[in-house]
Amino acid sequence: MTKPASPRTRLRRLHDKAAYDAATIHAILDAQPLAHIGHLVDGAPVVTPTLHWREGDHVYWHGSAASRMIRAATGQPVCLTVTLLEALVLARSGFEHSVNFRSVMVFGLAELIRDPAAKARHLEVMMDQMPPARWPQLRPLTAQELKATTILSLPLDEASAKIGTGMPTDAPADRDWPVWAGIVPIRQVLEPPLSDGSPKGPLPTVRRF
Amino acid sequence: MTKPASPRTRLRRLHDKAAYDAATIHAILDAQPLAHIGHLVDGAPVVTPTLHWREGDHVYWHGSAASRMIRAATGQPVCLTVTLLEALVLARSGFEHSVNFRSVMVFGLAELIRDPAAKARHLEVMMDQMPPARWPQLRPLTAQELKATTILSLPLDEASAKIGTGMPTDAPADRDWPVWAGIVPIRQVLEPPLSDGSPKGPLPTVRRF
Repeated sequence: MTKPASPRTRLRRLHDKAAYDAATIHAILDAQPLAHIGHLVDGAPVVTPTLHWREGDHVYWHGSAASRMIRAATGQPVCLTVTLLEALVLARSGFEHSVNFRSVMVFGLAELIRDPAAKARHLEVMMDQMPPARWPQLRPLTAQELKATTILSLPLDEASAKIGTGMPTDAPADRDWPVWAGIVPIRQVLEPPLSDGSPKGPLPTVRRF
Repeated sequence: MTKPASPRTRLRRLHDKAAYDAATIHAILDAQPLAHIGHLVDGAPVVTPTLHWREGDHVYWHGSAASRMIRAATGQPVCLTVTLLEALVLARSGFEHSVNFRSVMVFGLAELIRDPAAKARHLEVMMDQMPPARWPQLRPLTAQELKATTILSLPLDEASAKIGTGMPTDAPADRDWPVWAGIVPIRQVLEPPLSDGSPKGPLPTVRRF
């Protein structure tokens, strides 16, 4: 599935870094649970970090029903951005220094999930993307907890990916400049779980980033 | 130095997670080079990932003078957010699941750095925060490259930190629920440098995140 770029999602410069296909966009969203939500408060932009998860061609995030971000974003235009910083790119000139990265921007109106049963299902999917199959092991969600949790969603209709990859692209005249050049890879890693002191049940198996 | 919270930076909920002192804010900004800049395009929020760096009580970022983000942000209200995702917090109820994190939000009007000599100095500081002392080893910046590079800045006057830390905070009634609970630490790590095939000069020593 390939979606056409919208005026907002079309990359104006550096077109070779752009991608609009669902497989690329999904892979980036699935590789990084941290999203940054851009929304407006009194007409000015606010960027709030939160976790997100993807189900099919929608992305979701949640928060307290009392959260300022949740209240400001509901039904309003937002931009959800997810970024993986993957390497420092050390070139022979300052100008060609950069980073390798994969990012996705999604634009749209943040849609409120109202149905309590749908909300509970979405929360289970969210949990499954962290330690799989954990939800059924937990103390069940109460109606009050569900009510206090707001879930927002965006369709992936207006989304784009941007990808920077590879080695430095120094100009030919700079290739012999006597300095080390290459990349320094960056990874987000999970370390071994630390129990809170009342260990019960097996250690969780968490997905890898 | 402690700055008073503004109406925008004061945390309304979860006050115990908030910090407004410069030392805390600086430490978070210095630990994560990736920032997400919220700015407006046609009145709607856009969140663009970019690298930032701090000098004293200002934060800086740069980009191509032709970049849509740079053009849209210059002189305009922006929100710069920096986030370190530090652990998954696996509680005994879904409701108490969360993440440990440190984040900073900075609000203000993005100020253009105009003076070419000042721009060159700022770029050297930026580079020094990646592999230290690399700038003097590089092919020198040209006037044209400097002209093509725009640097924007925000004072840290209207900034706040938010910190989530520690083990799950399950309700007493949930403490005996038979499931593993604790945290899974997350770290952003640098891997060994990879040369681009024409190795000259020593391997760079990069700062640790």
